[in-house]
Amino acid sequence: MSDIEQRIGDSFRAQGLMATLGAQLAHVSEGEVHIELLFSLALSQQHGYVHAGAISSIVDSACGYAALTKAPRDHEVVTAEFKINFLRPAIGDRFVAVGKVQSAGKRLSVCTGEVRAFTDSKPEGKVIALMQATIANVAKTA
Amino acid sequence: MSDIEQRIGDSFRAQGLMATLGAQLAHVSEGEVHIELLFSLALSQQHGYVHAGAISSIVDSACGYAALTKAPRDHEVVTAEFKINFLRPAIGDRFVAVGKVQSAGKRLSVCTGEVRAFTDSKPEGKVIALMQATIANVAKTA
Amino acid sequence: MSDIEQRIGDSFRAQGLMATLGAQLAHVSEGEVHIELLFSLALSQQHGYVHAGAISSIVDSACGYAALTKAPRDHEVVTAEFKINFLRPAIGDRFVAVGKVQSAGKRLSVCTGEVRAFTDSKPEGKVIALMQATIANVAKTA
Amino acid sequence: MSDIEQRIGDSFRAQGLMATLGAQLAHVSEGEVHIELLFSLALSQQHGYVHAGAISSIVDSACGYAALTKAPRDHEVVTAEFKINFLRPAIGDRFVAVGKVQSAGKRLSVCTGEVRAFTDSKPEGKVIALMQATIANVAKTA
Repeated sequence: MSDIEQRIGDSFRAQGLMATLGAQLAHVSEGEVHIELLFSLALSQQHGYVHAGAISSIVDSACGYAALTKAPRDHEVVTAEFKINFLRPAIGDRFVAVGKVQSAGKRLSVCTGEVRAFTDSKPEGKVIALMQATIANVAKTA
Repeated sequence: MSDIEQRIGDSFRAQGLMATLGAQLAHVSEGEVHIELLFSLALSQQHGYVHAGAISSIVDSACGYAALTKAPRDHEVVTAEFKINFLRPAIGDRFVAVGKVQSAGKRLSVCTGEVRAFTDSKPEGKVIALMQATIANVAKTA
Repeated sequence: MSDIEQRIGDSFRAQGLMATLGAQLAHVSEGEVHIELLFSLALSQQHGYVHAGAISSIVDSACGYAALTKAPRDHEVVTAEFKINFLRPAIGDRFVAVGKVQSAGKRLSVCTGEVRAFTDSKPEGKVIALMQATIANVAKTA
Repeated sequence: MSDIEQRIGDSFRAQGLMATLGAQLAHVSEGEVHIELLFSLALSQQHGYVHAGAISSIVDSACGYAALTKAPRDHEVVTAEFKINFLRPAIGDRFVAVGKVQSAGKRLSVCTGEVRAFTDSKPEGKVIALMQATIANVAKTA
């Protein structure tokens, strides 16, 4: 396991919300991170589909960690802002959020994210949400 | 209790995610809804503050329900998209998300949201996040 | 020339702002439209680069026309909202905005856009801006 | 005239796009800037209303200059990103964009903007657009 995978794995396990949602870190590579979420009624909105907030949470984390793979040494990342479009209802057995770095600056990175929903009948998945996020690099305090 | 308070209360209690996060419906009036969240490590990001995703979840729900107070009869609402800026770390004992309708059309409403963090030493609160959201009205299917 | 190319060409020529900016319709296909802009000091911000507003204008039009290629018959499109990140200063001799439909619904489409800057020394171009837009379909009034 | 009014006036006059659109700097105070635009067919979209891009341009400049009133000395500002909702068609004789600082950090400011349309029959104006923008402070190079 590479240093950055280790570092992102440690950080992910320190995020109480990811455990509360039941999200798993699924993939880490240079500039790209995947987070997976299984359907649960504990994540639902009023119609029983997954709440936009749970979808936003996993793709925000995926974008943030993607940015971290490109951040300067001794820096951490925080989400300055994001925008997310919900293309269709979050119906599925399993959801995968993919965050990708589009531009990595010294201070700010811009990432795009997408979330796919998978069901037995749609094993190839359907894109249900698109994100565009600005992530700030912050120098670590000793 | 008015009809709309009743309807929003019922819908809120059907959102599994709000219970999972520990969020409470705090105020409903024409065009404005408040949702409250107490700090818990179950909501944290890697530094122990509340995760941007939990903050986004409550203010998304506050904006959606605010739009519902203005939606045509026999319609429901879904979030088409939102954008959120995080102004400072989500540090606090208690967070209140306020969603307000800025424009209510037949098909689309535009809402703004803000989230305030409260601590014993800052009883007046501090704005930690600002949202701008587009909510779609959808005719109820029988 | 296909019917949709004709229709978009006519609409584009009716946009006074595109003529004022000196923008040209460069490509129309199903779900994708390109608009080109040559550098001019008439488009500048205070440092002499192209103003974010001019860049936003061409990629907004590119996204809107891309959505129009997928809109139901007898409908027009209006931009409900967009979000744009500026990745680097708009320095170049020529700019091309590409709008692409990501999801086309009966009432709303979601498009992504990007703007590339070209110079003699960078003939392959550099992405300077990314957009994510929501376009509404509106029935034509007779 | 205060130093900041002078500085913003000089910068505004250096923006070729503002002159091309016919926009005027209308008000500068600590944390708030107004820019005015008169209707012209040179700014239109295909239905003869003002193009979303022209509206975005003036409110982007208003937000950027509002941020500049709060920026650290010897810093300039650039728009990192913005999001804008169009609440109704840009129909009017005169448009006023108001940019306000919501949060001013050392590196990033968050501003909100609104654009009002005025006609003889609506002298109080109508809000036609809402913006939420992230502005970066950049140290001046000598």
